[in-house]
Amino acid sequence: MTDTARKTAVVLVSGGLDSATTLAIARREGYTSHALSFDYSQRHRYELGAARRVAEAMGAACHRVVKIDLSASGGFGRSALTDEIAVPTGGENTGGIPPTYVPARNTIFLSLALGYAEVIGSFDIFIGVNAVDYSGYPDCREEFVKAFEAVANLATAAADRDRGRFTIHAPLMWLTKAQIIRRGVQMGVDYSLTHSCYDPAEDGAACGRCDSCRLRAAGFRSAGLPDPTRYARSGNR
Amino acid sequence: MTDTARKTAVVLVSGGLDSATTLAIARREGYTSHALSFDYSQRHRYELGAARRVAEAMGAACHRVVKIDLSASGGFGRSALTDEIAVPTGGENTGGIPPTYVPARNTIFLSLALGYAEVIGSFDIFIGVNAVDYSGYPDCREEFVKAFEAVANLATAAADRDRGRFTIHAPLMWLTKAQIIRRGVQMGVDYSLTHSCYDPAEDGAACGRCDSCRLRAAGFRSAGLPDPTRYARSGNR
Repeated sequence: MTDTARKTAVVLVSGGLDSATTLAIARREGYTSHALSFDYSQRHRYELGAARRVAEAMGAACHRVVKIDLSASGGFGRSALTDEIAVPTGGENTGGIPPTYVPARNTIFLSLALGYAEVIGSFDIFIGVNAVDYSGYPDCREEFVKAFEAVANLATAAADRDRGRFTIHAPLMWLTKAQIIRRGVQMGVDYSLTHSCYDPAEDGAACGRCDSCRLRAAGFRSAGLPDPTRYARSGNR
Repeated sequence: MTDTARKTAVVLVSGGLDSATTLAIARREGYTSHALSFDYSQRHRYELGAARRVAEAMGAACHRVVKIDLSASGGFGRSALTDEIAVPTGGENTGGIPPTYVPARNTIFLSLALGYAEVIGSFDIFIGVNAVDYSGYPDCREEFVKAFEAVANLATAAADRDRGRFTIHAPLMWLTKAQIIRRGVQMGVDYSLTHSCYDPAEDGAACGRCDSCRLRAAGFRSAGLPDPTRYARSGNR
C-alpha cells in the first residue's frame, strides 16, 4: 500500500478459490475492496459463509450480500445449482456447457456490481472468471467480459456525465488453476477458508466429485501444493 | 394473431405509459408476452399494481415481479426514486441526468430479463426505452441497447450452445411521447390503467409536477388526446 489515496474496487467474492485469489490481487494492486456476494438461492449457499470469512481475511473494507432469487420458485431455475436438477459427478468436462450453468448469472452479477460501483464511486470491478481450467460457461470468456465493459461505459451517469471509465478486471482469465493457486499462496491466501463444492454436505464438507471439486483438486495436485479442502467421507478422492 | 406458432417474448412492464405501449406492440407483432416487473424498493411502488393491471388488460401470458432491493439499506440508493433524495419538480429537463436516475437500473433489469428469457426459451426482450421525450437517462439510448444485445449474445448457453440470437426490441426509441400515445390508442391501450408519477399520493394519484408527470401530460396535450391521468388535488396542472 502506497501513501497515495487508495483506489476503490468492487470485487465479486463467491467464497471460492478463484474469487479469493482475485480479491488478493485487487489488494496487491492497491485497491480498497468492497466485496460483493449473491444469495441467489444457490444449492451451495454454504459458500456465503466462506465469502464472509475470505473478505475478512483478505482485508476487504466491507462485505455485502445481495439477495436475488434465481430459483425456479422465483421464476428462474433451470440449473443444477438452483433447481431440482442433479449436480453431475461424471468427471472431466466433456466440452459442452454443463447443467450447473445458471442462465445469465454473470451478467446479472456484473450488472448489480456496476450499480453498486456507481453508488460507491468506484470505476473498477474485479471478477474471478477464467477461460482455461473452467466449466465451459459462456459468461466466463474474455469476449463476454469486454462486451459487458462496453455496456458499463454506456449505461451509467458515472461514465456519461462524469466521464469516468469502468474497467472490468478479470485477472485470472488466462491462468491455469495451478497458476491461480500458486499465485494465491504467494500472496498469502488461506485456501482452507474457501469453498468450491457445488453439492456440499450439510456441514459444508466438499463432495469431491462435482466439476468444481475436481477442477480444484486437480489444481492443487498440479501446483504440487497440499489441498486444504475438507472433503466428506463419501467423496471419492 | 396468425395460425402459426406464436413467438414468446419477455416484456419489461413498469406500469407506465411507455411499457404499456411496448406490450401492445409486442402483441401486435404476434408475440406471446411474459410481462416482467421489478420491485426494487422504488418510491413509486404503486406502479406495480398498474403493471399487473396493464399486463392483464393487454393479454400477457403471465406477469412476474422480481424483487431486488436497490434502496440505500440494500447497499444501493443514491437516486430520488430509491433514497432520501427529493424528486425534482422544477419543470422541463435541463439536459443533464436528473436525480431520479437509478444507477445501472436498465442494465440490471435487462440482465434479469435475459436470464428469465433463457429460462423460458425466449430470444426476444422488449423494453420501452425512448431517446426523444425522455428524462436523459444514459441507459435509455440506442447505443446502450445495442451494447446490451451484444452481451446477451455472448453471455448465454442459449446463444452459444443453441446458436440462438437474442434481440432487444426498443420499438419506442425514436418516437415522441405524442406518437407513442397515438400509437397506443390505435392499438387499444387504456392509459387510465397506467401510472407514470415518481412521487404519487398514497392513493396513487399523480403529483403532476415530477419529470415523468410533465412528460406524460405534455404528450397527451401534443397528441390532442384527453389525459386520463388521475392527479392529486395539490398538483399544479
